[in-house]
Amino acid sequence: MNASFKKYVAEFIGTFVLVLFGCGSAATAGGELGYLGIALAFGLTIVAMAYVIGPVSGCHINPAVSFAMLISRKLTVTHFIGYVVSQIAGAIAGSALLYAIIDSTGKAVTGLGQNGFGAGYGIGIPALMAVIVEVLLTFVFIYTILGVTSGESNGSVAGLVIGLTLAFVHILGIGLTGTSVNPARSLGPAVLLGGQALSQVWVFLISPLAGAALAVAAYRGLNRNQEKNT
Amino acid sequence: MNASFKKYVAEFIGTFVLVLFGCGSAATAGGELGYLGIALAFGLTIVAMAYVIGPVSGCHINPAVSFAMLISRKLTVTHFIGYVVSQIAGAIAGSALLYAIIDSTGKAVTGLGQNGFGAGYGIGIPALMAVIVEVLLTFVFIYTILGVTSGESNGSVAGLVIGLTLAFVHILGIGLTGTSVNPARSLGPAVLLGGQALSQVWVFLISPLAGAALAVAAYRGLNRNQEKNT
Amino acid sequence: MNASFKKYVAEFIGTFVLVLFGCGSAATAGGELGYLGIALAFGLTIVAMAYVIGPVSGCHINPAVSFAMLISRKLTVTHFIGYVVSQIAGAIAGSALLYAIIDSTGKAVTGLGQNGFGAGYGIGIPALMAVIVEVLLTFVFIYTILGVTSGESNGSVAGLVIGLTLAFVHILGIGLTGTSVNPARSLGPAVLLGGQALSQVWVFLISPLAGAALAVAAYRGLNRNQEKNT
Amino acid sequence: MNASFKKYVAEFIGTFVLVLFGCGSAATAGGELGYLGIALAFGLTIVAMAYVIGPVSGCHINPAVSFAMLISRKLTVTHFIGYVVSQIAGAIAGSALLYAIIDSTGKAVTGLGQNGFGAGYGIGIPALMAVIVEVLLTFVFIYTILGVTSGESNGSVAGLVIGLTLAFVHILGIGLTGTSVNPARSLGPAVLLGGQALSQVWVFLISPLAGAALAVAAYRGLNRNQEKNT
Repeated sequence: MNASFKKYVAEFIGTFVLVLFGCGSAATAGGELGYLGIALAFGLTIVAMAYVIGPVSGCHINPAVSFAMLISRKLTVTHFIGYVVSQIAGAIAGSALLYAIIDSTGKAVTGLGQNGFGAGYGIGIPALMAVIVEVLLTFVFIYTILGVTSGESNGSVAGLVIGLTLAFVHILGIGLTGTSVNPARSLGPAVLLGGQALSQVWVFLISPLAGAALAVAAYRGLNRNQEKNT
Repeated sequence: MNASFKKYVAEFIGTFVLVLFGCGSAATAGGELGYLGIALAFGLTIVAMAYVIGPVSGCHINPAVSFAMLISRKLTVTHFIGYVVSQIAGAIAGSALLYAIIDSTGKAVTGLGQNGFGAGYGIGIPALMAVIVEVLLTFVFIYTILGVTSGESNGSVAGLVIGLTLAFVHILGIGLTGTSVNPARSLGPAVLLGGQALSQVWVFLISPLAGAALAVAAYRGLNRNQEKNT
Repeated sequence: MNASFKKYVAEFIGTFVLVLFGCGSAATAGGELGYLGIALAFGLTIVAMAYVIGPVSGCHINPAVSFAMLISRKLTVTHFIGYVVSQIAGAIAGSALLYAIIDSTGKAVTGLGQNGFGAGYGIGIPALMAVIVEVLLTFVFIYTILGVTSGESNGSVAGLVIGLTLAFVHILGIGLTGTSVNPARSLGPAVLLGGQALSQVWVFLISPLAGAALAVAAYRGLNRNQEKNT
Repeated sequence: MNASFKKYVAEFIGTFVLVLFGCGSAATAGGELGYLGIALAFGLTIVAMAYVIGPVSGCHINPAVSFAMLISRKLTVTHFIGYVVSQIAGAIAGSALLYAIIDSTGKAVTGLGQNGFGAGYGIGIPALMAVIVEVLLTFVFIYTILGVTSGESNGSVAGLVIGLTLAFVHILGIGLTGTSVNPARSLGPAVLLGGQALSQVWVFLISPLAGAALAVAAYRGLNRNQEKNT
């Protein structure tokens, strides 16, 4: 396998695992886990994947992260496309296996951990507020990634910090939008479920990209060439 | 942007995120999260922010922390004022957005994660006990910050430890005062809500500062020039 | 004691502790802990044991991990056999003590944290799906172990990452198969309980070994000689 | 202050904080926190205290840990006595404040997070089993401490690992004995409450010391001069 192809396989595996474990925990055991358990399912997936596929592909497993790297000039356009295609394929594969797991019990598949908003989803925020929330959640997630991966002394804890950050953006966001911050993670369940999950998915495609751009801008404005603390 | 202004922007962002995610988790999903989930929302916010705005401003995002740094002569009076103003502005902005999120669902905004005491709040401790509790919670939080940031080998884990410490002072404190340990975090919801949150807020302005002073005194008395363990 | 015997004693102790604390938490306090609490009981056991028996035996405490090390040529056949026998003995001893603890309260022993599938266990997935799930859970767990223990700079956090990974494979898996990923952990309760736990235990003997082989293959294919991130 | 006196003050503060936050969480918010929340209150207290009083006194805050250090010849008899007296005083002070907090609400003080066994406590194990359980819990806790503090590369994560280990021995032990592993932590509530807490406290004085001795023996037998992993 050449190096690029290995990266794409790694991104496929990582996004597959993220969707299977994160969305799967929400869909098969959400009641037993509560919001905190679901948040940690997503967050600890990143912790694990960061240490094993991180050295291969950087462990983006999220088109919004790859977009931030693209506009930070740390990823070529070619690789960006390869990464995103792999991530979406992994997310759909993870959702499909989750579908098969629930289906194998003989019960109807009513949810796959999909994102959403509006009446009947979480506390019921409208579309515009869902966009604002997702932009902010993604901003916090990706701004933290940019910060922790740039500190030279943070090497060994960066994966832990990034995973715990994904957990805490879920703690707040699960009741609002289900927390996407990741277009691939939203597309997977939406493609399998169709219906409202699919008709609302546009929010979770554009907002994380906007949040990523905002995070790159904040990082450039505040963190580049920062002096020591007073 | 000059360096001071960057610090103030960083403190604004950090405190905005702390209040939005911490108080927001309590206000929008407290029942689903339980005390542990709320405690981790506050704690993990600090973990994330420490690694990204820490290199810019030191990530105080709390006037009591800035006060401890002021009396430890690690922050000038000018910077202290700039930090505190930025923190309060960030907290009010975070509370305002939280207000807007809840309001957008069409439900009445009855809480914003405000601190309090007395009948009807937590287990119902009186004002004097609330002062004692907040002084102690803040003492533990800031004494730990002083300890972990002074150890040269703790560099990469300091943010994790500080965040987990904020989580555990919440684990005990949520049922008592809601855990302030941070005047800005209390002012934000109080200003937006008025009423009891505002009339009780004096406890959460003075007690964290007293706890911070106590922590600096303990650190000076016990930790300066300590010998190796026996 | 010679060095090999010390390793076997260490593996016995570690697996005894894993089963006593992990399965014991599920069996004696599963309702109070919820899935997340049980998941962390298993995961944090690994964190602790990694730092104390890790330097003695490598802290496999799991035949699937030892199998991965065998086919990666990091463990001799003789040691593999010694490790697995010690792990199984430790697991049975841990299950026996757990049995005695529950029995000492005068109540009937109806469960010892055993794995399972089918009607009446978790969400009720059939045998074939249980095999697929266990292969995948083990793949993720052992692929992460291979990644985090190879990174030279991960030394001090490897134990934390491995434990948190075991926690998150439990977060998803508890409701499906109870999460084995470890033939010894499944054999212990099955031998003590007999019945369905024993008749279904074959799934939890073969699937983790298959998952381990898959993880070694993925690691060889993707992670060996990987280049730096683009 | 001379160096010994600083150590004793540090041990007093640390044990005071451990009892106030750990037992306090159980007594004032046990229902809201669940076993996992209580376990993390105890565990994260150790994380925090390790990084701030660790450099002063070693952060034993537990007579069983000091006993392990005494028999490992890392603590003199004089210091051992000073440490234990300080720990017990801190635990009683912490319990007294907790009593005052609950009392200030006008409700009767029915519990202070005391340890126990037998009918009406947890799942109701008898005295002999309580002894066995506490010996084992303490063995695991202190064996891990000995391991993680000896590894030279573990410096910055040792406090995290020790705290998480205390958390996980609570995850199993809360439903059995409430988890002591610390004679001072048990004495505090028992002295304040009297009655059954006091009449049963002998189990929690002797068992942790026995567990500590066992941990030192295991460490000497297995970990001294260990070779590299096969």
